[in-house]
Amino acid sequence: MTAEKIIESDFPSGHQLPIDGGEAYIDSLRGRDVRVYLFGELVDEPVDHPMIRPSMNALAATYDLAVERPDLATADSAISGRRVHRFLHVTESVDDVVMQNRMQRRLGQLTGTCFQRCVGMDALNSLYSVTHEIDEAHGTEYHERLLRFIRHCQRLNLVIGGAMTDPKGDRSKGPSEQEDPDLYTRIVERRDDGVVIRGAKAHQTGCVNSHWILVMPTIRLRPEDSDYAVCAAIPVDDPGLSFIYGRQSCDTRALEGGDVDVGNAAFSGQEALIVIDDVFVPWNRLFLCGETEFVAPLVERFTAYHRRSYVCKTGVGDVLIGAAATIADYNGVPGASHIRDKLVEMGHLNETIYGAGIAASHESYRTSAGNFEPDGLLANVCKHNVTRFPYEMARLAQDLAGGLMVTCPSEKDFRSAETGPILEKYLKGRSDVPTENRLRMLRLIENMTLGRNSVGYLTESLHGAGSPQAQRIQIARQMDVEAKMGFAKRLAGIKEHEQT
Amino acid sequence: MTAEKIIESDFPSGHQLPIDGGEAYIDSLRGRDVRVYLFGELVDEPVDHPMIRPSMNALAATYDLAVERPDLATADSAISGRRVHRFLHVTESVDDVVMQNRMQRRLGQLTGTCFQRCVGMDALNSLYSVTHEIDEAHGTEYHERLLRFIRHCQRLNLVIGGAMTDPKGDRSKGPSEQEDPDLYTRIVERRDDGVVIRGAKAHQTGCVNSHWILVMPTIRLRPEDSDYAVCAAIPVDDPGLSFIYGRQSCDTRALEGGDVDVGNAAFSGQEALIVIDDVFVPWNRLFLCGETEFVAPLVERFTAYHRRSYVCKTGVGDVLIGAAATIADYNGVPGASHIRDKLVEMGHLNETIYGAGIAASHESYRTSAGNFEPDGLLANVCKHNVTRFPYEMARLAQDLAGGLMVTCPSEKDFRSAETGPILEKYLKGRSDVPTENRLRMLRLIENMTLGRNSVGYLTESLHGAGSPQAQRIQIARQMDVEAKMGFAKRLAGIKEHEQT
Amino acid sequence: MTAEKIIESDFPSGHQLPIDGGEAYIDSLRGRDVRVYLFGELVDEPVDHPMIRPSMNALAATYDLAVERPDLATADSAISGRRVHRFLHVTESVDDVVMQNRMQRRLGQLTGTCFQRCVGMDALNSLYSVTHEIDEAHGTEYHERLLRFIRHCQRLNLVIGGAMTDPKGDRSKGPSEQEDPDLYTRIVERRDDGVVIRGAKAHQTGCVNSHWILVMPTIRLRPEDSDYAVCAAIPVDDPGLSFIYGRQSCDTRALEGGDVDVGNAAFSGQEALIVIDDVFVPWNRLFLCGETEFVAPLVERFTAYHRRSYVCKTGVGDVLIGAAATIADYNGVPGASHIRDKLVEMGHLNETIYGAGIAASHESYRTSAGNFEPDGLLANVCKHNVTRFPYEMARLAQDLAGGLMVTCPSEKDFRSAETGPILEKYLKGRSDVPTENRLRMLRLIENMTLGRNSVGYLTESLHGAGSPQAQRIQIARQMDVEAKMGFAKRLAGIKEHEQT
Amino acid sequence: MTAEKIIESDFPSGHQLPIDGGEAYIDSLRGRDVRVYLFGELVDEPVDHPMIRPSMNALAATYDLAVERPDLATADSAISGRRVHRFLHVTESVDDVVMQNRMQRRLGQLTGTCFQRCVGMDALNSLYSVTHEIDEAHGTEYHERLLRFIRHCQRLNLVIGGAMTDPKGDRSKGPSEQEDPDLYTRIVERRDDGVVIRGAKAHQTGCVNSHWILVMPTIRLRPEDSDYAVCAAIPVDDPGLSFIYGRQSCDTRALEGGDVDVGNAAFSGQEALIVIDDVFVPWNRLFLCGETEFVAPLVERFTAYHRRSYVCKTGVGDVLIGAAATIADYNGVPGASHIRDKLVEMGHLNETIYGAGIAASHESYRTSAGNFEPDGLLANVCKHNVTRFPYEMARLAQDLAGGLMVTCPSEKDFRSAETGPILEKYLKGRSDVPTENRLRMLRLIENMTLGRNSVGYLTESLHGAGSPQAQRIQIARQMDVEAKMGFAKRLAGIKEHEQT
Repeated sequence: MTAEKIIESDFPSGHQLPIDGGEAYIDSLRGRDVRVYLFGELVDEPVDHPMIRPSMNALAATYDLAVERPDLATADSAISGRRVHRFLHVTESVDDVVMQNRMQRRLGQLTGTCFQRCVGMDALNSLYSVTHEIDEAHGTEYHERLLRFIRHCQRLNLVIGGAMTDPKGDRSKGPSEQEDPDLYTRIVERRDDGVVIRGAKAHQTGCVNSHWILVMPTIRLRPEDSDYAVCAAIPVDDPGLSFIYGRQSCDTRALEGGDVDVGNAAFSGQEALIVIDDVFVPWNRLFLCGETEFVAPLVERFTAYHRRSYVCKTGVGDVLIGAAATIADYNGVPGASHIRDKLVEMGHLNETIYGAGIAASHESYRTSAGNFEPDGLLANVCKHNVTRFPYEMARLAQDLAGGLMVTCPSEKDFRSAETGPILEKYLKGRSDVPTENRLRMLRLIENMTLGRNSVGYLTESLHGAGSPQAQRIQIARQMDVEAKMGFAKRLAGIKEHEQT
Repeated sequence: MTAEKIIESDFPSGHQLPIDGGEAYIDSLRGRDVRVYLFGELVDEPVDHPMIRPSMNALAATYDLAVERPDLATADSAISGRRVHRFLHVTESVDDVVMQNRMQRRLGQLTGTCFQRCVGMDALNSLYSVTHEIDEAHGTEYHERLLRFIRHCQRLNLVIGGAMTDPKGDRSKGPSEQEDPDLYTRIVERRDDGVVIRGAKAHQTGCVNSHWILVMPTIRLRPEDSDYAVCAAIPVDDPGLSFIYGRQSCDTRALEGGDVDVGNAAFSGQEALIVIDDVFVPWNRLFLCGETEFVAPLVERFTAYHRRSYVCKTGVGDVLIGAAATIADYNGVPGASHIRDKLVEMGHLNETIYGAGIAASHESYRTSAGNFEPDGLLANVCKHNVTRFPYEMARLAQDLAGGLMVTCPSEKDFRSAETGPILEKYLKGRSDVPTENRLRMLRLIENMTLGRNSVGYLTESLHGAGSPQAQRIQIARQMDVEAKMGFAKRLAGIKEHEQT
Repeated sequence: MTAEKIIESDFPSGHQLPIDGGEAYIDSLRGRDVRVYLFGELVDEPVDHPMIRPSMNALAATYDLAVERPDLATADSAISGRRVHRFLHVTESVDDVVMQNRMQRRLGQLTGTCFQRCVGMDALNSLYSVTHEIDEAHGTEYHERLLRFIRHCQRLNLVIGGAMTDPKGDRSKGPSEQEDPDLYTRIVERRDDGVVIRGAKAHQTGCVNSHWILVMPTIRLRPEDSDYAVCAAIPVDDPGLSFIYGRQSCDTRALEGGDVDVGNAAFSGQEALIVIDDVFVPWNRLFLCGETEFVAPLVERFTAYHRRSYVCKTGVGDVLIGAAATIADYNGVPGASHIRDKLVEMGHLNETIYGAGIAASHESYRTSAGNFEPDGLLANVCKHNVTRFPYEMARLAQDLAGGLMVTCPSEKDFRSAETGPILEKYLKGRSDVPTENRLRMLRLIENMTLGRNSVGYLTESLHGAGSPQAQRIQIARQMDVEAKMGFAKRLAGIKEHEQT
Repeated sequence: MTAEKIIESDFPSGHQLPIDGGEAYIDSLRGRDVRVYLFGELVDEPVDHPMIRPSMNALAATYDLAVERPDLATADSAISGRRVHRFLHVTESVDDVVMQNRMQRRLGQLTGTCFQRCVGMDALNSLYSVTHEIDEAHGTEYHERLLRFIRHCQRLNLVIGGAMTDPKGDRSKGPSEQEDPDLYTRIVERRDDGVVIRGAKAHQTGCVNSHWILVMPTIRLRPEDSDYAVCAAIPVDDPGLSFIYGRQSCDTRALEGGDVDVGNAAFSGQEALIVIDDVFVPWNRLFLCGETEFVAPLVERFTAYHRRSYVCKTGVGDVLIGAAATIADYNGVPGASHIRDKLVEMGHLNETIYGAGIAASHESYRTSAGNFEPDGLLANVCKHNVTRFPYEMARLAQDLAGGLMVTCPSEKDFRSAETGPILEKYLKGRSDVPTENRLRMLRLIENMTLGRNSVGYLTESLHGAGSPQAQRIQIARQMDVEAKMGFAKRLAGIKEHEQT
């Protein structure tokens, strides 16, 4: 059987043509037999569910960008010899790493939310070098398998959702110490043709909107945890998978009709709990299986990639700054010095995040497998700022918005014949600005700081790709305190040998 | 006609017995003909509306506290010679001012939200001294009228909603410069027996839950703005009033049934737009009418009182700290040093707010009318910290909560026979803690940092009682830079006379 | 022997008349046989040493204030029946505690530095209640002895320097675990008539300028550390004491002549290492001797008092704000919005410190001994803000000062016939302000943020009365997390009993 | 006359061989007839003055680095066809810009202070493109003249001190509005062979240590200010120049002998006031003369270069972090979680500065002249963080150092036979660490946070290359608020044309 055939059998797909734009992408999601639960019930067709659809739209924007700005969102892949979507591209140069950040910021500006495609990109790039190293150490074939998987995804232009975060149960205990061994995803059966895995992955961004789920371990493992060391590609419509959809602040406003109160009607993020109920994975879709010693490097490289991917939030931040500037303008006081100063502060904070992120990418190094890996210290510094500055920016945006942001009546009140004219009269700001525009802008800021997108802009900024403490641990490891102590001792005139 | 009779005619009331507890308070709201609009429609009976009721419960807690802790929530009033609710008490000592803060913190702890009764208290106390001064200057009778009004409210134990904030329209223009003169509330007709007023008051906390609305001007006025200088008591069920209910983040979760996803099922705040459509107010309910020069002192005294009233947020902060500590405990890692440190930081910030607030009260001075007024500088400092620290505390609470706070499925998914057991299994934290408890705590933190109560804890902390810039202006006025320059010049050896 | 005689024998003093002002105070220091080392040599007469004298001047200001503002700096003492200096007063009311803070702020404004008399005041007040409790528990006579000592000091109006901080050696080890047992001050011999003590006290503020040193333990002790549990009064000129004077930034500018470059020519702080070389202390001057279980309460009460005493830094902060405002004025741009805004920020931070401090005093409670003790939580919160805000205020002051603050030539260059006119020409700011005034103001800001007084305003703000972590530990103890967890659980609908 | 001859006549130099290391550099400064005033007197030989020498040593380190790490500190110049010092190199690639930052960080680590050679580098690179553009617009020859000057400097490996900051006088007035027209440097006479200039330059880093001074205007100019539009190269020993040396905190400790109390004995920075007393400059050393419209681009490009050059402070920050870590180690508590956490925070802040700086360099673009210019927005963001984070890092370092940093006796006390052993005994930290080492480390931290180098690490970080407000203005200009408003309006569903 040829490699192509193997791909066909192991990576089956109903779509034989590459997805060539946002609309085709939405179509590709339709009619799949994916088990999605929401409010305690199976969702008939997620694509048509008004609470779910905006999260698909955000992902669709990544496809549209590839059409409109191929320089930004596509790249030539040496793996498949094709022009592929940048989200499916394994970096071949420093510039490739940098361009990811530029694409991410742009998508943040276009969607004002999480577009859910970074985890897969960062996972492919991390696995690329790690599988290469496992193979070198153990004579395995993980790297070649991964290449086949990548070729398949590139050919059809698919979405890969990376699945890393285990539920973790009692945080004071490791995987095999939990009362319930399934609280970390694990191999429950090893067969000749593959393995059976069980567990769950929590907080999974964009999972329902993906074609493939790429399961990976979430923390460094000890030898006795070898059942937990598994990387596997699973089709989203595998019958063993279920998705229980997560609630977001103000999520049901999307069910009310209207496009004002939702704040950002077109786009949103998505998180769900993936339940993996004894799913069989054939060897050709396994990229790590028991090699616990390679889990730490995998996690570290993935987080270096992914923590720097949070520059996407500067694109979202651009929207928030723009919204704050617009509402100040609508209120009639755009030139007040304290208002201009707050906008500058927002800009400064936003670019500080961007600076560390893009610097991490610019400072990438070549791995032994040949792709490029961003600077880990700067990547962690970028993400650590992301856990702080968006909160301050949100506070400043609310400051500029004014209290009406949280006391404004509903869109229905505005549409009502009785109350509509009253609101039009009394909630007017600058007289040449339609009251509705003012309200739309207030709802957008509410959306980003308290509502549906605050989930992505704030809380996910805090916890995605690792909580603040995770970055602090990594910074402690990489900041090289020892060398710095040497600089200080030299300048202080301390002769080390005197000491002891 | 005796004073009592005057009271009866001008301050009519269906309740002839004092309201003696939370339940009686709720009853007192029932059956009134109050025009409340929500989602474009008139609400039948606000008391029974699941989105509105929790805000009434919060106010009811003020009544219950007076029963349980009369030392804290009642006082002997020289005005009526009765033991009255502290929210209706005009301060007779420094201790009275301090005790308001203690009561406010306790109510914050009990309700975790805004209990909506402070504005009236602060308004009475400010008007008490200002009406006295107007009478001295102009030989008017405002003070005596106010005393009658207070006696009436004390006797029946009523809720007074203070109404200050005008819609303001174009912020770069004053009241009489607006295209639409109604964008600040004003007198449209002066009659022998009183005046007719028109306009609106935005962001009105607890208004639907009050018995009386006490209208006051919102900014210092110039002589040509005399139509805008009016203080008036209006019954909430006056047919000229309408209330258009404001949306809050996640407000409709209260309509879903269940008590988990709402986070704080019992209590919430309330804001509405009050529309004043040509309401007649008789002289006996007017406490300022055209005396523009007394508006600035009134606003300044009210804000001194009210900015210090924001120590209520430290009571709410106590709940948030407790929630953060509990979720860390449920996650199994309460003792981690970085977690303990974040709790200490939250406590430190919370008490820093409290310190400045209670200090402002302790440093009260006696007005010429005989009641006590808190220190203006410290009151502004208190409020200014309130515009910052709750946001940082919210960030820290979200840090301790973990990402599950925003990705957790709905209560219905937990109640579902199909998904319930799965969630019970996978979302368990420490094994001896029921998963539901963990979720309840996460939803409470969501409620306070993104959801319904974040409106009160965050955005209202920013904008209520004046936005940050309003405090900075006041601090600039009161910090006495000149005296400080003198200290510096003396120590630097600068002889002033050399200079010129 | 009468009590008076006992006092005379145990508390001998050359000054038989009370010190009645700053000049008399300076005289009282002259001619004592105190061993003070500076730059490796014994100082002949500290009073006449230009590096030391300004620190005496600062203390003298406390005497002068008592003359000018007796309401602020004196009080009627029930202990001696006299009108005494407030620094020697044991509080008899809440107001007494509050008045300490007012006096402290005023002295900060007058001296722009540390006036070195608070430790003694705070020590007396803490020992007052603790000795009372030891006596009750053990039938000892410490309290009566302390009263005699206080009467003596009040009668002659003396300065008591509290001495608490031991050198501590290896911070990971307790007193009796150190290689050198003297690294914490201890009893080395117990005799019938008293004890002999040995050790050292580091960072001792104002010690050379005191009449008495009041030695106290620095940390909670275990029973096996009983030799370290000792409180003793020692005359500063005891032959067993030596004082090794600490260096301060820019200290030798005081030796250069001129009064510009020093920044604040008249006043400074003082710290020294006190070496206690086998000093005999008779029983009548011992106030705790071996009762280890009372050391923790003593330390806790002292720190509650002393951490709130750091409101003195708001007086110093007033000077810094004034200096920053003056230099902006001299530069010709006092009205620029960003400059006004920075001054407001400085004022806000300064008052935030003051608020928590004065609140701690206002919230004092009566001890069983009858004096008053400030609120411990708020006192720690006050001090914790002192470890942060002065640094930010210093940064803002430097921002307003401009770079000239650190690049300006010396006073001698200004006095030189050759370079003086050039500097007069080129370093002029606003044309109607003498260049010298501009330079004096810059040097004052340098003094407070980098120079001699930055030691007191910054580093001592950080470490005096306990480093930041000490406050965090205390805040953790006193913030009552358990109660807060209860508030949260109640509102989240969690029934505790389900939880086992 | 050949170009070489022109160079020889216009750029005369006593050194005919290139300076090939630090020692040769120091030699090159010796014996010049440079007028340096210090403490009101002319300095005989600056090279041998103990207060001045350490600033020369810092500059010498740049020469030594070129020998030790030619990859880091040298480059091939197309201008002269030589391998030249990187500080004299005009960038020919993005990598050249990035390498400047790497060299700067390394020199910060090696010297712990300002090494004073960046301004010249940044000035050359800015003038390179601006002179090219002036020539294109006006047919002048500035660019060619600049090339000759650069060739000369590269050949002899000289130090160029950029001189930009005018005294400015009354900040509310422009150059030609000042009472004294000399408060901005200006042309006072135009001659056939050149111009005569007069004025002064304040805060001039490293000027006495340079071979050439490159005078440039400090602010954008209007057409009527054409006399103030002048760029000129002047030899440091021009008889018309005088240098009045600026005081630094603790500067005279260098005169005391000993190497402990100075903190960093070998290295320091330097600032002086340069007085330009009617200096004639021939045409060949003029690079801009009257073209006011090119002053704004020059200033903007220079500040973009120079604000990013402040990544040098991260090298200094590395020293401070190392010192803080070392002192924690010496105190015996390196592993305490709050200590490790503070070190991580310092590292995070330091790398945040570095991230934005190196990102600005990586994002450089090619100018029309062919050299590369860093990204202006990120450069300003870098510098703006430099005005904040070193202050917080200094506070954290002082926290870890403990109070002994400011109360420790002098080196002479340690060397004294009498007090030395006492201090050795009582100021010991961990028993295996010599007390002297502990003191050396404390003095280094004092040096960097209060002493001589705090001038460079703190105040110069605030004001060098423009005060904070200068960056805010630049950020406001470059952050493109308009585009951001467009993103927000699109997502809020606002159709712009409706608005009008």
